[in-house]
Amino acid sequence: MDIPALMQNIGVQARAASVAMAKAKTAQKNQALQRIADLLLAQTADLQAANAQDLAAGKARGLDAALLDRLALNEARIQAMAEGLRQIAALPDPVGEISDLRYRPSGIQVGRMRVPLGVIGIIYESRPNVTADAAGLCLKAGNATILRGGSEAIHSNQAIAQCIQQGLAAAGLPQTAVQVIETTDRAAVGELLRMKQFVDVIVPRGGKSLIERVTEEARIPVIKHLDGICHVYIDAKADLDKAVKVAFNAKTQRYGTCNTMETLLVAKDIAAQVLPLLGAKYLEMGVELRGCAATCALLAAAKPATEEDWMTEYLAPILSIRVVDDLDQALDHIRQYSSQHTDAIITEDWSRAQRFLNEVDSSSVMVNASTRFADGFEYGLGAEIGISTDKLHARGPVGLEGLTSQKFIVLGDGHIRT
Amino acid sequence: MDIPALMQNIGVQARAASVAMAKAKTAQKNQALQRIADLLLAQTADLQAANAQDLAAGKARGLDAALLDRLALNEARIQAMAEGLRQIAALPDPVGEISDLRYRPSGIQVGRMRVPLGVIGIIYESRPNVTADAAGLCLKAGNATILRGGSEAIHSNQAIAQCIQQGLAAAGLPQTAVQVIETTDRAAVGELLRMKQFVDVIVPRGGKSLIERVTEEARIPVIKHLDGICHVYIDAKADLDKAVKVAFNAKTQRYGTCNTMETLLVAKDIAAQVLPLLGAKYLEMGVELRGCAATCALLAAAKPATEEDWMTEYLAPILSIRVVDDLDQALDHIRQYSSQHTDAIITEDWSRAQRFLNEVDSSSVMVNASTRFADGFEYGLGAEIGISTDKLHARGPVGLEGLTSQKFIVLGDGHIRT
Repeated sequence: MDIPALMQNIGVQARAASVAMAKAKTAQKNQALQRIADLLLAQTADLQAANAQDLAAGKARGLDAALLDRLALNEARIQAMAEGLRQIAALPDPVGEISDLRYRPSGIQVGRMRVPLGVIGIIYESRPNVTADAAGLCLKAGNATILRGGSEAIHSNQAIAQCIQQGLAAAGLPQTAVQVIETTDRAAVGELLRMKQFVDVIVPRGGKSLIERVTEEARIPVIKHLDGICHVYIDAKADLDKAVKVAFNAKTQRYGTCNTMETLLVAKDIAAQVLPLLGAKYLEMGVELRGCAATCALLAAAKPATEEDWMTEYLAPILSIRVVDDLDQALDHIRQYSSQHTDAIITEDWSRAQRFLNEVDSSSVMVNASTRFADGFEYGLGAEIGISTDKLHARGPVGLEGLTSQKFIVLGDGHIRT
Repeated sequence: MDIPALMQNIGVQARAASVAMAKAKTAQKNQALQRIADLLLAQTADLQAANAQDLAAGKARGLDAALLDRLALNEARIQAMAEGLRQIAALPDPVGEISDLRYRPSGIQVGRMRVPLGVIGIIYESRPNVTADAAGLCLKAGNATILRGGSEAIHSNQAIAQCIQQGLAAAGLPQTAVQVIETTDRAAVGELLRMKQFVDVIVPRGGKSLIERVTEEARIPVIKHLDGICHVYIDAKADLDKAVKVAFNAKTQRYGTCNTMETLLVAKDIAAQVLPLLGAKYLEMGVELRGCAATCALLAAAKPATEEDWMTEYLAPILSIRVVDDLDQALDHIRQYSSQHTDAIITEDWSRAQRFLNEVDSSSVMVNASTRFADGFEYGLGAEIGISTDKLHARGPVGLEGLTSQKFIVLGDGHIRT
């Protein structure tokens, strides 16, 4: 197969579709989203048949149980996809919003208008629901999308894409506004990452190795989420009840999410009070504890932590714990080891809370709240395409706004520059 | 010289300085800016002596007159640098600004805080004043800066950097917050473009070949200005006086700037009225006219335009002119040839103005105003570090805001996720 020619063709069609999508009316985009949701439900049996092919191939290739679970499209998951699209339809349309329009001394009016980015390339791994979620968000923001899912989910993704394209057509929008790359050849990804003239931004969704490969190869801007090594710092002036409640929730509410706490920092003046309480609760949940020497002295069950532990995103019932002298040492630790995703302080002290808010350079910085709140829904953005650990363009949970840009508009009445 | 080690050292120092700069108070940053301005004026003689070395070397190397002019630091230019820094000092500090803080159903408050980007690498060509302008803007936005100027300006840049570092020290800020790369070895640029762990964004300022090289080699996000192929479209429903006034100003107010009109589009129904008037005015100014067949039929002085002309940023007294059927054909032309910098429509028709504003995908889109307004000062941003033709992060004139990022802040009172 001539991969460069295939991808070139996809690029040309996406660029053309993006022009139509940028002009699409809000009602039309919402109609498409509702229609796609209807079709996903109506075609549940077909989707499951396609998914069964992927599951059978996956089993034959010896994929592990966790991967097979992520790949599986049961009825509940199909309903969740449809519901997600309806929620996106209910969100306000960001496109065309004009802000900051004001007169300048020259007499012109200058403002900003929110506009789609254009063409978005999404590269993702085994979960087929990303096909509907990502396409839905990009569609609502007025973009065309090129989707490249994992080869293990190819039949599922194609079946979902068919629903999407039927829904687009029903709303009078170009079917090419959402294209799924149908070859599993890895060279197609290489092409996608370099098609500057056709693709405006790449959003990789998956494990660290995928994201690193995409970042290294891309010649197009990337909105990425690298990893979540999140910290909770229990300050000496923390309220003991709040500290225990938040630090327990941040670790145990879910283990596999990027906003789960991986390292607990505790000020030495409160460690003897708070660590035994927390340690007992973690152990009850089966959380393995790895601590610094001071931690191990307070918690008999803790194993010694190594340097490697401070740099690890466990995504599992394991927690590293370090006793620090004070806020300064906590800030130093966070500066050195945090992945700049989400970090929280527990304190009743106003000045320390302010310092933490100002000085921690992470996409979400919290006071007296669980890191688990770092999420597009919890922040009121609606659905999210991911959580960006980059600093440019989009930082933290990325919703519709992150899939748009702002251009300047200038309104005059024959004004010239002198 | 061990270039990787040298650059590594600069990177480590810049990262450390960025932590101090992010915490610097507004008054301290303004004091540094004022002090640098004072020093530039006080050391005018030293700056001119250093500049004379560069000019002599440039002449010996046979640099052309235009390049030597750009390189020259006369008294007026030194005063302009100082004045520019005082204007930056007078701008509001963007750092720490909190917006959109609101309660969520869970009880947490979520908002955004504006924060510095961190470390900014600036790569520029012959004008030494960029050293002060760029460093001043980055400093005010709370960033550390690594500057790499053209080798032909090395002595001038070092002399300016000395003033900057003395000013930083006088305000109690780290001198390493602004570092000038002192080697002219090109390998240093290669290192700078790949130091992901130390540099957050690269801003190239210079000609197209510099920008293309930076974009190709960088493994760090780039805020760039590629080129300005700007259009004015005179609609059939344009007011004749406004059309002549704006189209004349957009071309002739300055020829060498990126927001200068390079192509004039005229609706066929108004071409016979407006082109002879405009043609006479352009010819009086010595502007060379290159037109489509219909243009040449109306303007005897126009030469035939080639396909190449529609794609050329002349930066000179040359203008390409095309007669189009209507707004649709004008939009098609702009979609195909515009560099997405700045495009304007002249019309009295409400619906056509709205369509132009909505459908032209450029960093600035104007109605009845000269493209020459596309500028940070004219837009009220204060000084600008450049005009971005990218869509992500910063688009159009980039002032202090483009040199910052926003992080989420979450304020709770022991809130946990359930």
